[in-house]
Parts: sequence; C-alpha cells; structure tokens
Amino acid sequence: MEDKSHREHKKYAADIDSISKAQARIKPYVHITPVLSSETLNSIAGKSLFFKCECFQKGGAFKFRGASNAIFSLDDEQAAKGVVTHSSGNHAAALAMAAKLRGIPSYIVIPKNAPKCKVENVKRYGGQVIWSEANMQSREETANKVLHETGATLVHPYNDGRIISGQGTLSLEFLDQVPQLDTLIVPISGGGLISGVAIGAKSINPAIRVLAAEPKGADDAAQSKASGRIITLARTNTIADGLRASLGDLTWPVVRDLVDDIITVEDKEIVEAMRYCYEILKVAIEHSGAIGLAAVLSDSFKRNPDLKDARNIGIMLSGGNVDLGVLWESLNNR
Amino acid sequence: MEDKSHREHKKYAADIDSISKAQARIKPYVHITPVLSSETLNSIAGKSLFFKCECFQKGGAFKFRGASNAIFSLDDEQAAKGVVTHSSGNHAAALAMAAKLRGIPSYIVIPKNAPKCKVENVKRYGGQVIWSEANMQSREETANKVLHETGATLVHPYNDGRIISGQGTLSLEFLDQVPQLDTLIVPISGGGLISGVAIGAKSINPAIRVLAAEPKGADDAAQSKASGRIITLARTNTIADGLRASLGDLTWPVVRDLVDDIITVEDKEIVEAMRYCYEILKVAIEHSGAIGLAAVLSDSFKRNPDLKDARNIGIMLSGGNVDLGVLWESLNNR
Repeated sequence: MEDKSHREHKKYAADIDSISKAQARIKPYVHITPVLSSETLNSIAGKSLFFKCECFQKGGAFKFRGASNAIFSLDDEQAAKGVVTHSSGNHAAALAMAAKLRGIPSYIVIPKNAPKCKVENVKRYGGQVIWSEANMQSREETANKVLHETGATLVHPYNDGRIISGQGTLSLEFLDQVPQLDTLIVPISGGGLISGVAIGAKSINPAIRVLAAEPKGADDAAQSKASGRIITLARTNTIADGLRASLGDLTWPVVRDLVDDIITVEDKEIVEAMRYCYEILKVAIEHSGAIGLAAVLSDSFKRNPDLKDARNIGIMLSGGNVDLGVLWESLNNR
Repeated sequence: MEDKSHREHKKYAADIDSISKAQARIKPYVHITPVLSSETLNSIAGKSLFFKCECFQKGGAFKFRGASNAIFSLDDEQAAKGVVTHSSGNHAAALAMAAKLRGIPSYIVIPKNAPKCKVENVKRYGGQVIWSEANMQSREETANKVLHETGATLVHPYNDGRIISGQGTLSLEFLDQVPQLDTLIVPISGGGLISGVAIGAKSINPAIRVLAAEPKGADDAAQSKASGRIITLARTNTIADGLRASLGDLTWPVVRDLVDDIITVEDKEIVEAMRYCYEILKVAIEHSGAIGLAAVLSDSFKRNPDLKDARNIGIMLSGGNVDLGVLWESLNNR
C-alpha cells in the first residue's frame, strides 16, 4: 500500500526522495521551527491544535525552505549568473537571502502594491529590486527581460519542483515533532506549499488528511477542484496578499489528487484568527498565515461531516511578515 | 568549588534542590518554551543571542512556573481554602490558572490601573477579582481582608520560596536547551524571577554571568545594589507596568550576592526592543518582557568593559501580555 502510494507520487514534480534530499541540502541553513499549542484555542476549536510556527523561519516565512533548496541545487556555473523571480514578497525575500548565503546575485521583480515590510526584507537581504505593475503579465514580462539581460536562472515562486520539494520539508519536520497528527491545514495560493506538504505527509502516513485553506475572494483552487481543471480568476478580492496567485501546471495535479478538501473562509474570519494568534499564541502572523486557524474555526469546517473525526490537527502558520500598523488597522476595521 | 557554592545557596529561600523539586512538580502543567534566535538581531547586537520565549508559557508569562509550584506544594487541607494574592497582573492570572487546575478557589486583588488584557486573563482562568487602589498599601490591606475572611493561603508574587523555586526552573530548562550560555539577562522587579534563575544557573555553572535589566524610572534594585541595602522608591516612572515592584527580604540577599550587575535602560529603549521583537522575532512581548533585549542593545551594556567577553547571551522574554493597541501606541509615541 505504501509502496504503491510512493510510486504514484513519482508522477509529480516532487516525491519523498526529492523532499528528503531537500531536507538534507537545506539543513545547515534553515531553522527547525517550534510547534506551539494552546488549551484556550483547543477549547475554542474543540480539537487538539498544533501550530507549526514558520513565522519563525528565516525571513519570517516558510518560503526560505524552497528558496534555499532551489539556490543550493544550482551548479556553480548556473549559480554564478544569479537568480531572478517575481513575487508578492515572502518568496522574494527568501530567495534574496538564500542567494546572499551562496554569494550570488538575486534579481527580484516586485509589484508596486507589495507590503512595505516585505519589500524592506528583500532589500535587507541584498536582493536587487526591480519594480513591475501589479498584474501578473507585467511581472512575468519584467522577469523575462531580466532573464535575457543577465542569464540568471528563473526560480518561480511555486511552479518549480525544487521549490515544491523544499516546502515539503515542512511536513517531514512537523510529523517528526507531532507524530499523532491526523489532519494538516495548509494555506493555498499557487500551491507550492501544499503540494510539497501533501506529497511528504502522505508518503509518511497515507491516511493523513490534507486540507487547503483559501480565501473566499480568491477561491480559484476550490473552483478548480470542483470542476476538475485549473480555473484562474480575472479578479481576486481578499485581504490576504499572499494568497492571490493561481495554481500552476506542476502544483495542480497534486492539489487535484492529494488534497482532500478545500475550506474557504471570509476575510473577517482571517482577521479574527490573526487576533487569536496575537492575543493567545503571542505570535505575529500575516493574513495569509492565519488562514489555517480561520479554517478550523469556521462554520464550514464544523459543519463538514467528513471532518468530524479530525482530532489532532496541524496548522501551518506560514508567515509573520505583517506591518504592525496593518495588523492594527485590520483588527479595527472588522 | 561547586560544593561550596551549593552550600552557600542553602542560605537563601530557594536552592538547587528546591528548584529541581519544583521542576518535577510542575512538569505535567507547564510548557517547555522554545528558544528563538535571529541572525539579524545577532548582527545588531554583535553577540549571539538566545531568546527564551516565556511569552509562550501558559498564561503568556513565566509566572505560571512559580504559581503552579506554590499551588501544588499546598497540602489538601490548605488547598481547599484557596489562595489569595495581590498582583499587577501576570502572577494573578498564573495563580488563577494553577488554582483552577487544582480545583481550588483563587482570590485576586488587582489594582484599578492594571492593563485590561491582564485582568481579562484572570477572569478567563476563573480567578475572583477583588479591586484595590493602585498603591501597595491598599493592595496589601485588601489582600489581608480576604485572607481573614476565607482562610486562604497568601501567595506573594515574588517574596516566597515556592515562587522563587518555581521561577528558577526556567534556568534549568534554558541551560539544558543552550548549554553554551555564558550570560543571562533577566528583567528585575520584585526579584522573584532573577533570584530563582541566579540560584539555579549558578548551581549548574558557577561561572555564568547573571545580569538584571531594570527601567531607569524604577531603578530601586540598582540603587539597592549600589548602597548595599534595600532601597524602595516613593515613586516610579516607567512604561513597563510589570517592573515597578520593590525587592523583598527573600529576594534581596540573592540579588545582592548572585546578580553580577544591573543594566538600567530608558523606556524608549524598551519600546524599540518591543519593535524588534515584533518585526524580527515575530513575537508579542510586553514592555517588561522586552527589557532584556533593550539592555543588551543599550550603550551602557556596550560600554561596560566587564561585559566585553559575553558571547552567548540568554535573554528572558518573560511575558507577552500586551494589548495590541498599547503596543501600537507605544511604537507611535516614541
């Protein structure tokens, strides 16, 4: 049974071998992040919740796992020309930081509306910022221009096997820390994180349930699951700036096959979860990072008969890069 | 050498034996809190910093260690009558929580000017709130009245051997997690935490340096150290609401003998440290909890020739109970 499942995962852009290799490759560079729990939140949720605090990862988000795997996978010749990406923020900072560690240049295309703290992170870590318009077309065109001028390697934020494998290391680490987990809740945007996590976690424990959490205002993954093909949205409308991307051709098959369900939540539920993170867990969590907690507290989770037997739930607090002023405003505009 | 130091500590209200027993007693109830580190903060400080995150302890502060040790030290007959304390907040919530765990009543005298989130914590954990005026005389008189009416046991916030032993468990846990620590920086108020930590840490490693961090506007401990006797201040003036108490007769001898130095810092340095905790470490830290980081970043630390060889510095992030609005205002009124 496990062997079969293992073989099946070979058809994706990552598998347990590539994830294990990523774990060994990035080990010298990443933090093993702690898992927090709170009896107060357990009693609110009626479940045992385990919070994997990737807000404490280098750069303040899980993205450094994939970025460092990509950077340290390059051969010396490729690496010398540097890397380029377009990103709404955390991947950009993570790539800049990993590039700095290897001593190679990074060219970061950032949309003009990106949060200030994320742009500052990129600069702090030595990334060369190149501005684009906020739409995906402008981001890709600008990145391509840089590619041609520099010969750098493109490292896509999620649609890249090296990235998926790197993000998947999170599941190996989490299940090692809390082996009794029966359910994982993972934010979904482009699908890089959840693809790596689903492949990694189900390779270790095929019975584990992997749920995605998605904003209602950017529910392309839920729509894609429902219709059996990639749906992209013309417009998104969510406060969670990190969750507006669409699935890629490498992440979609994993989401289609290995993600058990997608829980969609309202922005106000995300903001309430941020408040819980701050007031009860004492951690700074960005909107995108709080969505897993929002999902487990949502009515759609509680009403779902398939989720009744979920007991030990692992929640990915995927990142903590939120300007304090933005957090404050979010909580006051509920 | 170690034997001598061990015997010497017998003269205090706690020793390594009482701390070890406390550790075993409270183990089923407390969190082992994680230690965080940040290369960004290391490079700002020019030292290797290790942050012991007691903001993630139950109740959001280290106080639960001492409180649960006190509560579970009571015999059944004493316990049944409950406990009483007067406290500016974190000790109160911790005592209420520990009493609830043991199923006994707790009577909590709270000054009217205590921060809202701390009062709510007390109520959430089932403590019976009894209001007093903000001054120490009113707090003590009110507590004594409750004592006489109920027969409950007084558990002082810091001047109590059971409390000192419980807080001291923090040093055993921290040195187990980061054995290479050569210096500890601990907030000082009434001295319960630093007394337990100094006795515990120096019993394990007599060469370790234990420094107190104190607000300039409530520097009674620094003045006491300088003059060789307990000094109490008629007035304090600091934003750190948890650091306004005076040393007690049980904590003073430990501070006098075992605390190597006291670093005093300005309120604005505390606020800047809170900002670093939020933006870089991604943790919510109250003013009193951030003072250790403020101390290590202060000019008086950097200029002190005795501290030049401090390399691996353990910083107690002692608590995280700060209203978000208060944090936001603090950072904007610098």
